[in-house]
Amino acid sequence: MVVKSELKLIKSLHQKKYRNEHGLFLVEGKKAVLELYASPLKAYKIFVLQDQLPPFASEACAVVTDKELRQMSALKTPNGILGVFHIPVSQPLDFKGWTVALDDVQDPGNMGTIIRLCDWFGIPNLLCSLGTVDCYNPKVLQATMGSIARVNLSYGALEEVLPTAGVPIYGTFMEGEVVYGQPLPPQGILVLGNEGKGISAAVARLCNGKLAIPQFGHKTAESLNVATAAAIFLSEIRRKGQGPTQR
Amino acid sequence: MVVKSELKLIKSLHQKKYRNEHGLFLVEGKKAVLELYASPLKAYKIFVLQDQLPPFASEACAVVTDKELRQMSALKTPNGILGVFHIPVSQPLDFKGWTVALDDVQDPGNMGTIIRLCDWFGIPNLLCSLGTVDCYNPKVLQATMGSIARVNLSYGALEEVLPTAGVPIYGTFMEGEVVYGQPLPPQGILVLGNEGKGISAAVARLCNGKLAIPQFGHKTAESLNVATAAAIFLSEIRRKGQGPTQR
Repeated sequence: MVVKSELKLIKSLHQKKYRNEHGLFLVEGKKAVLELYASPLKAYKIFVLQDQLPPFASEACAVVTDKELRQMSALKTPNGILGVFHIPVSQPLDFKGWTVALDDVQDPGNMGTIIRLCDWFGIPNLLCSLGTVDCYNPKVLQATMGSIARVNLSYGALEEVLPTAGVPIYGTFMEGEVVYGQPLPPQGILVLGNEGKGISAAVARLCNGKLAIPQFGHKTAESLNVATAAAIFLSEIRRKGQGPTQR
Repeated sequence: MVVKSELKLIKSLHQKKYRNEHGLFLVEGKKAVLELYASPLKAYKIFVLQDQLPPFASEACAVVTDKELRQMSALKTPNGILGVFHIPVSQPLDFKGWTVALDDVQDPGNMGTIIRLCDWFGIPNLLCSLGTVDCYNPKVLQATMGSIARVNLSYGALEEVLPTAGVPIYGTFMEGEVVYGQPLPPQGILVLGNEGKGISAAVARLCNGKLAIPQFGHKTAESLNVATAAAIFLSEIRRKGQGPTQR
């Protein structure tokens, strides 16, 4: 049984404005909820159907009815468990090693995939422009899985933050230098741009280098999606030996 | 004005069974429809709202009402233009250069992204197991953009087709050899597995080599998504100089 005011609170978390106001976000699905529960993130409450009770006895768990879960969920078909967690405080960026910066990435699926890639490739910090999709958007969380708990996310105006970083800044551009042959320093920032417009002119001016993935197919091929491009650039940074030791 | 029987036909194309029965598929959105219209694919009919008429006068164009378009569309919010095209006949696979094979890839978004990657990296042929998602699924087409017209897709039982290929077969596995240092031949097949289960045991037995992308982050990081892994493996094949000249 969930009181009306709480139902209203949870539902409001579908919107960024209320996530920020309450300092809470929600995530759905057994795997993601259990992984965040086991992470350093602090759980506010976990709502679960009676037959889906997780294998931990916790005062944070509340059994709900199917109807209540449907009312809270951001999914068409809720999947039995919904966790509400406190938004962690962003750690100050230290720009040690490599950092990824996003210049107005809009698509939640792309954002989620990029967070997951940072986790895989050991990128501790992700700097997002103020126009980048909110990382606690439920659709972003669907795509990140538990990685959101392992990458430090920070939002800020790139034009202001980047000049203070003190490490080389590499932008990704269609007309950049082919990344394969480029030597890369042990520390740097990789900037990825908006899906339609790429990197803004103001941020492009701050880049010390421009990198590209060459095209091998038809000249008419669609440009690479920003998340698949991120995968290739991060793989190249690590292949060149710039970063944490492989585990 | 669309007659009832035609409305029924178009709607039936949301399902694979009827796409195969009629040899037709549908694609939505101005960019995708115009690109396929300009490709060698043969248009059956293009349905369009009066105010969205494309800049070509074609007997294939039929003006429809908002209500009719909504009835045909697979989208919640149709976007003004819906094209119906003939499914092209698959060309026989010649296994020249590199081929990608999918072993039961299920997610339409992943499939669409992989088709787009093949287009970018100049992979002419994509071989799909019989359990792989249908490439003419509307959600796949949303993610491929026009690339579907430039990659030859063929469905077949991998256990039967792969042994006849006569080129080395490389499977992608979590426990494979790190791809960065592996020399790769000028011709080969890259096999990508199912999102949850990876490559099936029967197909794994046919692999001459096993490749992996090393993990650099937390040991608990989520495994790479199959589409982002595809991006990195294809980039590695091309980086090593195995393939068409860069354009």
